[in-house]
Amino acid sequence: MDWKPSPHPHHTLQAQIVAWIAERIEHGDWNAGFRLPAQRELAARWSVNRSTVQAAIDELRAEGLLETRRGSGAYVSGSAWNALLARSQPNWQRHIRASVHKPNRHTIRLINDNEPDPSLVRLGTGELSPELLPARELERSLRDLKLDPRAIGYSEPLGSLRLRRALCVQLERLGIRAQPDNVCIVSGALQALQLIAVGLLEEGSAVFHEPISYLNSVHPFQSAGMRMLPFRHGPQLRERLARAARGRQSLLYAVPTLNNPTGRSWNPARRQGIYDACSELRIPIVEDDVYRDLLFAPGPPPIKATDGSGQVLYMGSLSKSLSPGLRIGWVVAPSPVAARLADVKMQTDYGSSAFSQEIAAHWLETGLYERHAERLRSELRRRAARTESALRERFRELADWETPEGGFYIWLRFRKPIADKSFFRRLLDRKVLINPGYIYDPSDLHHIRLSYAYASDEEMQAGLNALREEAERAWRD
Amino acid sequence: MDWKPSPHPHHTLQAQIVAWIAERIEHGDWNAGFRLPAQRELAARWSVNRSTVQAAIDELRAEGLLETRRGSGAYVSGSAWNALLARSQPNWQRHIRASVHKPNRHTIRLINDNEPDPSLVRLGTGELSPELLPARELERSLRDLKLDPRAIGYSEPLGSLRLRRALCVQLERLGIRAQPDNVCIVSGALQALQLIAVGLLEEGSAVFHEPISYLNSVHPFQSAGMRMLPFRHGPQLRERLARAARGRQSLLYAVPTLNNPTGRSWNPARRQGIYDACSELRIPIVEDDVYRDLLFAPGPPPIKATDGSGQVLYMGSLSKSLSPGLRIGWVVAPSPVAARLADVKMQTDYGSSAFSQEIAAHWLETGLYERHAERLRSELRRRAARTESALRERFRELADWETPEGGFYIWLRFRKPIADKSFFRRLLDRKVLINPGYIYDPSDLHHIRLSYAYASDEEMQAGLNALREEAERAWRD
Repeated sequence: MDWKPSPHPHHTLQAQIVAWIAERIEHGDWNAGFRLPAQRELAARWSVNRSTVQAAIDELRAEGLLETRRGSGAYVSGSAWNALLARSQPNWQRHIRASVHKPNRHTIRLINDNEPDPSLVRLGTGELSPELLPARELERSLRDLKLDPRAIGYSEPLGSLRLRRALCVQLERLGIRAQPDNVCIVSGALQALQLIAVGLLEEGSAVFHEPISYLNSVHPFQSAGMRMLPFRHGPQLRERLARAARGRQSLLYAVPTLNNPTGRSWNPARRQGIYDACSELRIPIVEDDVYRDLLFAPGPPPIKATDGSGQVLYMGSLSKSLSPGLRIGWVVAPSPVAARLADVKMQTDYGSSAFSQEIAAHWLETGLYERHAERLRSELRRRAARTESALRERFRELADWETPEGGFYIWLRFRKPIADKSFFRRLLDRKVLINPGYIYDPSDLHHIRLSYAYASDEEMQAGLNALREEAERAWRD
Repeated sequence: MDWKPSPHPHHTLQAQIVAWIAERIEHGDWNAGFRLPAQRELAARWSVNRSTVQAAIDELRAEGLLETRRGSGAYVSGSAWNALLARSQPNWQRHIRASVHKPNRHTIRLINDNEPDPSLVRLGTGELSPELLPARELERSLRDLKLDPRAIGYSEPLGSLRLRRALCVQLERLGIRAQPDNVCIVSGALQALQLIAVGLLEEGSAVFHEPISYLNSVHPFQSAGMRMLPFRHGPQLRERLARAARGRQSLLYAVPTLNNPTGRSWNPARRQGIYDACSELRIPIVEDDVYRDLLFAPGPPPIKATDGSGQVLYMGSLSKSLSPGLRIGWVVAPSPVAARLADVKMQTDYGSSAFSQEIAAHWLETGLYERHAERLRSELRRRAARTESALRERFRELADWETPEGGFYIWLRFRKPIADKSFFRRLLDRKVLINPGYIYDPSDLHHIRLSYAYASDEEMQAGLNALREEAERAWRD
């Protein structure tokens, strides 16, 4: 027990304690049933507050590694399963638990755990608020749904033909020419990334992504053993990508339109530059275009629209524009690749919900979707304007931002690097949940992702007030 | 090109040729654009029929490895993606393509590819026929569905609380006491196995299963790097399991009630024996109970009902009894394990379709499900009896079977080992699709899984006629 936590820019004392205790259990130093020293004692040895020890123990208890007994302290969890899980460093530890060490991962878990709490103001949530979801219209549309008995059995590998046809019509409007056998229906874009990782890449492949990236907040490629390599736009991109790939199989992931979290879109020249560089190097591009239907004004066409050689995998989804609960997304790809993804999907979950697919097809075919998207865009535009005007009032001296061109997000930049984990924590204590920038770029303590899609006007005002107060406090510290 | 295919009990000539060509491409012997020798020439070198070469090339073309150009033969596929896929033995090859070599895997793919063809008689399909799916009732029930806007956003990790509560009531009737936080909603039982493989086991773990096993037809554990170890019931089971596990982390998978494919159920003594042996060795049991609601008469309670120590993970599903298109199943587990599975699920697909979950909850709560299940059981009983009477008429000298106690299947045993891949192929040529026993036990050429759940009465009669003719033909050969 010579070890002691020490102040660190990215690892809180609590995270260090959690990691250290987990390691004792993993290594078998502390066996099932082992009684931990008293909290007071640990706090003294480690020169930390007792509340920090308490918080670390609570976290480990929530993970099932420790259990507490009234009046006699904390024990290494003794149930058969926990012992099993803890005994031999299983996969899930490598895939999930190991990442306890990373503050962004832990922050994401805190966000996930706290999001269901209705008393919280959610300033960063990348999700439409319940009142923006067309629940009544969906309910009504269910009455018009005709269920072909064949459609509610096991699905074809690529998904409902009816839905794929409806999507081809939709894609054509974006300049993307696709046949139904180019389209693989998935349960949302995250699953698409999983299928691409497992189905098309080998372990050790390189995945290029922008430095500020949604891919830092989810880990489909890392879990499958791929290396994440940030790339920067600019001269000699091709040479730099080639050097970084070092002959490994590789892939480039981007959200060229309304990037998550920055809200920015690439101009046509940048799109062409990436496409040319990747084409020459034969690096496939995964174009994640799930925010496209939320552009306030038409933007540049998808990269996929200019893709003659099948270099681009194009991803779309209804989660951002209709309902995440549908769990419906799609990948557009050369047909052998679509078939490969579909084959892996069949081995994973035997296809997406037939009911969701029928609802999606119905909404696309009847124009319900188009009308809803139009209304949604104008409501989001209104919310964006209102949020910006509040920012102008209260954050002019503290932060900078760009006027959003669509989607959910304002990428708010504080002029000092105050958006660290304790900033996140303090706001959480005040019942305000933010998405700090370090989730998307571990080195970034300047930004937070502000979402005007979730909080109501009143919540937004209250949340921004709290945000301003905590920002001012952090400013002074 | 010294290599030649040769007759082999499990690998057809075609499969050997496919594997050999794939290997040439993987090893880079044949690069993108390489023109294969003419079919006539290959057939001569390999001393096989030209139609065999043709079939192998068709298979590789369907996989995207070869392409054919009218009048000039077959080429190694040249598109960027295919080249990428073929270039460097990616994961998907290890996970999927490598298994081209296994005839059971290839047979399963042929089954999957052919199942959508409505002109086929499907004698083995483990799925309710469209007329047994309550499409009209589901359609009507959609009209009564009230959608809470909060329910159609992103799901809680464990899934809809409403559905989990409804399931707890259902489980109670089986003697299983569960709270909502013991239940993790999944998109069908196959996904449950995936989540268990990735979330709870380490690579190299041992997965025990019965020698004739559904797990030979799907590969969630193998894909995650686990070793499959068949176990046999009988004396000294505990010692044998302990020896085979060799100290590795391990798990035992079984379908104790209406096993797929044999249709058999374990008696209470066998259930207890497995439970005791596994408890002592701390080997968790995965009890797959997806056929339970299709028992023609009440059977022994689930093992989970007697599980005091959280040793058993219990899996259920609505795919067999209501609609596979719902993609709704569940795992009942100690709450930290349920939370772990839910966490992995969130990282995979952000939860199951909210619409499917609402429909499932509605059917369970209102008794629609119970009434439907009752009707379904009696219809399946009628079909089973009719199928058995046809078997008695036409297969008395050729085969044996047991009277089914529920579910979909009759495990038909031919008295000679005739159910090999060419038997499967010949029936497929006659538009009859069977599930040969070697899918479930690679060494088994005696059985086929006959399903009375899919084919109509007329199709069943026609299919059994073809089956009888081919069996007699194989008998003579």
